[in-house]
Amino acid sequence: MSHNLSSYLDENRDRFETELAEFLEIPSVSTESRYTKDVERCAKWLAEHIESAGVSKVEVIPTAGKPFVVAEHVVNPDLPTLLVYGHYDVQPVDPEELWDSPPFEATVRDGKVFARGSNDDKGQVHMHIKALEARLKTGLGMPVNVKLVIEGEEEIGSVHLESFLRENSQRLACDAVVISDTGMLGPDLPSIGIGLRGLAYMEIQVDGPSGDLHSGSYGGAVTNPALALAEILASLKDENGSVTIPGFYDRVREITPEQHAATEALPFDEEDFRLETGSVSLNGETGFSTLERLWYRPALDVNGMISGFTGEGAKTVLPAQARAKVSMRLVADQDPDEIAELFEKHVMSLAPEGVRVHVKSLHGGWPWGANPDSPLFDAAAAALEKPFGREPVYVGEGGSIPIVPLFEEIFEGPVLLLGFAPPGGNAHAPNEWMDLSVYHRGIETIARLYDEVAHKGV
Amino acid sequence: MSHNLSSYLDENRDRFETELAEFLEIPSVSTESRYTKDVERCAKWLAEHIESAGVSKVEVIPTAGKPFVVAEHVVNPDLPTLLVYGHYDVQPVDPEELWDSPPFEATVRDGKVFARGSNDDKGQVHMHIKALEARLKTGLGMPVNVKLVIEGEEEIGSVHLESFLRENSQRLACDAVVISDTGMLGPDLPSIGIGLRGLAYMEIQVDGPSGDLHSGSYGGAVTNPALALAEILASLKDENGSVTIPGFYDRVREITPEQHAATEALPFDEEDFRLETGSVSLNGETGFSTLERLWYRPALDVNGMISGFTGEGAKTVLPAQARAKVSMRLVADQDPDEIAELFEKHVMSLAPEGVRVHVKSLHGGWPWGANPDSPLFDAAAAALEKPFGREPVYVGEGGSIPIVPLFEEIFEGPVLLLGFAPPGGNAHAPNEWMDLSVYHRGIETIARLYDEVAHKGV
Repeated sequence: MSHNLSSYLDENRDRFETELAEFLEIPSVSTESRYTKDVERCAKWLAEHIESAGVSKVEVIPTAGKPFVVAEHVVNPDLPTLLVYGHYDVQPVDPEELWDSPPFEATVRDGKVFARGSNDDKGQVHMHIKALEARLKTGLGMPVNVKLVIEGEEEIGSVHLESFLRENSQRLACDAVVISDTGMLGPDLPSIGIGLRGLAYMEIQVDGPSGDLHSGSYGGAVTNPALALAEILASLKDENGSVTIPGFYDRVREITPEQHAATEALPFDEEDFRLETGSVSLNGETGFSTLERLWYRPALDVNGMISGFTGEGAKTVLPAQARAKVSMRLVADQDPDEIAELFEKHVMSLAPEGVRVHVKSLHGGWPWGANPDSPLFDAAAAALEKPFGREPVYVGEGGSIPIVPLFEEIFEGPVLLLGFAPPGGNAHAPNEWMDLSVYHRGIETIARLYDEVAHKGV
Repeated sequence: MSHNLSSYLDENRDRFETELAEFLEIPSVSTESRYTKDVERCAKWLAEHIESAGVSKVEVIPTAGKPFVVAEHVVNPDLPTLLVYGHYDVQPVDPEELWDSPPFEATVRDGKVFARGSNDDKGQVHMHIKALEARLKTGLGMPVNVKLVIEGEEEIGSVHLESFLRENSQRLACDAVVISDTGMLGPDLPSIGIGLRGLAYMEIQVDGPSGDLHSGSYGGAVTNPALALAEILASLKDENGSVTIPGFYDRVREITPEQHAATEALPFDEEDFRLETGSVSLNGETGFSTLERLWYRPALDVNGMISGFTGEGAKTVLPAQARAKVSMRLVADQDPDEIAELFEKHVMSLAPEGVRVHVKSLHGGWPWGANPDSPLFDAAAAALEKPFGREPVYVGEGGSIPIVPLFEEIFEGPVLLLGFAPPGGNAHAPNEWMDLSVYHRGIETIARLYDEVAHKGV
């Protein structure tokens, strides 16, 4: 990095933090309609700040929902183009009484800024703006083209994102996509995302008697739908914690010796993780470590179930119905539609006599697996090394970010998950925070990434 | 039956029905405090009518709850004494909009009187008063002593009954107890109760993570408490529908060849019963008929269960906790405390790794089995035969009436369940009704029972 850039970042640390605070203090909660004006104000603020960073073309584009902020800084169509995705909307703050400082007053304590959106995702979006500014204000210019698409509906399911991307695929055309909306494995561990699990979310309904019956007058003579559901659920996993649905594992990529070795080498503390869950022990599929279970292996969980009388005390009812939500986290190359079908077929085959079983697919999403041997990942690793003083770790993510496979499909290029959220950063919870030292190192990383991509390609 | 008695009953049919209507029109709902005055008024009405029937000693006895109505007609201490138990309180009427005529306006349609309490239990209590009246007003006098204890808290769990009976056991001393609070197997089938199932009602709580977790970030690495609960529940029964708890069947009386033959001979329509349940088929323990499953075999049912997210749509949560209510219907000679202990021990032994399982006993009650070869049952059979034109059937009851074993214990004599509620009579439901022809035949039966007991003993 040039001396100019380095000193610009040093000299402007305080101003960056002040601006970040301003950005965080706009309550851009997309889930609550009383914040509609604030969400719009936030989009406008963001566009103005991207413009004043020196980006040539910035626009706030309204939708039927919240507006998109789109920016393009194309210096030369022959250079590689990076498309940066992020979101300026935030989660609600409830329960507000659990916040140690007001959620929309950026408050610095111990080198951390506390505010809703500080890491998810306004803080990380801001890093990209400041990296651009640093390149443009120092007159260094850009060795790559950068486009930005920042949405205001991520926390309500990115309702208009797919259609927006498809309609604007020419304008947003790029060679690679950079998303900074994930986290770091440890406080000082630069982390690059290499996998996301997909999702097949199902509902099972078991109908027995036409109405709740008296468990004395009828108990023993009709199939109990709650017990029938329990039998179905219980038989979905075997004693090794493996899913019993025929064909379930057919498309699951084997863990390579390299992946196994890399996962083993990570500074991951099982006991810390167990404490984080509050479980008495960590348990899962036999033959795999916790990180392998979360990153490379599919999982099946009951998300909820309900039947009959659930209040206090005793009510002697034989329930008419029982329902459960069951979700499966998928890994590459499992197909969510295929898994939903296999699930339905299998559950129907388990239906005991005397009840009617219905299976419904509620939601699906593709798993995603990156190719960490690509030039884009090399560039990112190189960009991270100086600011963080070490090589990055490559991390999976047990959850699903359905937009990642979407970007990959629409723009036919790789996606880089370059996330800076701290572990335990309370995204979606009270006292969300961002490490300011990571914030500044992140800006430097992104500024370096432009050069690295220019040299290495994607 | 003497000509006098027979013509008295004939001549007073209309007045009996008018008085029954008056009794039914007092809204003696014990569960709702706004009816407190009505419940007291009902007790007073009942006492006055017992007195005007000619019974020598009648008293309304207040308690901390609803009053008891106690009456004694002791003609000769050397004669057998029958203690009649019943209740004058009724269930609430909700949902009132489903009633075809107002619940507290006795309305006659097709020879049936529709009103709350018409069969449960005011109608049946009234039959006993009218039987006494017929004996006393015709100057025939009584061949047995009769005592009455009619409570106002049956629908709220008979909270003061046990202590009241124990405190008044001398005053209420008797040779046998007659309870008319059960039903008939068919519309014209005089029925005598010979068994009641007991109850052991349990709650299972499975604790996993300390709070709900994200099913993506943690799924596959910790034991899912809902799935753990499902596994526990599913393993409580085997593929034959038998309960797997070790020792569960140890004290269950074998069905005798006589019981089996008698049950087979009953005019019981499986298809009618199936339609009544609304289930697609009748299913239960292998090797037993539906009536045997309900009357002579214990049952295990899940009464309710809840865990995690149960609303509409998808929420990717790995629940912290799962709970289920499980009740077991017991048959003679199973001991509810022992069964609760066996259940707890077994469930704890099933607890999978990674969760903590808690078991709680919520409620218990003894099963009851009558001796149908006793003189009391002969007397009842003889009393029923003329009014109903056939021998009675001996029926079990899948539900529990915990006061039956209680009466047997306190008064050290047999209990006769002489019930006249019609099948499908909507006790506890909208449009409760009583067949008026059965009502009059029931009065005649009870009047005959006095003579039969005087001849045959108890």
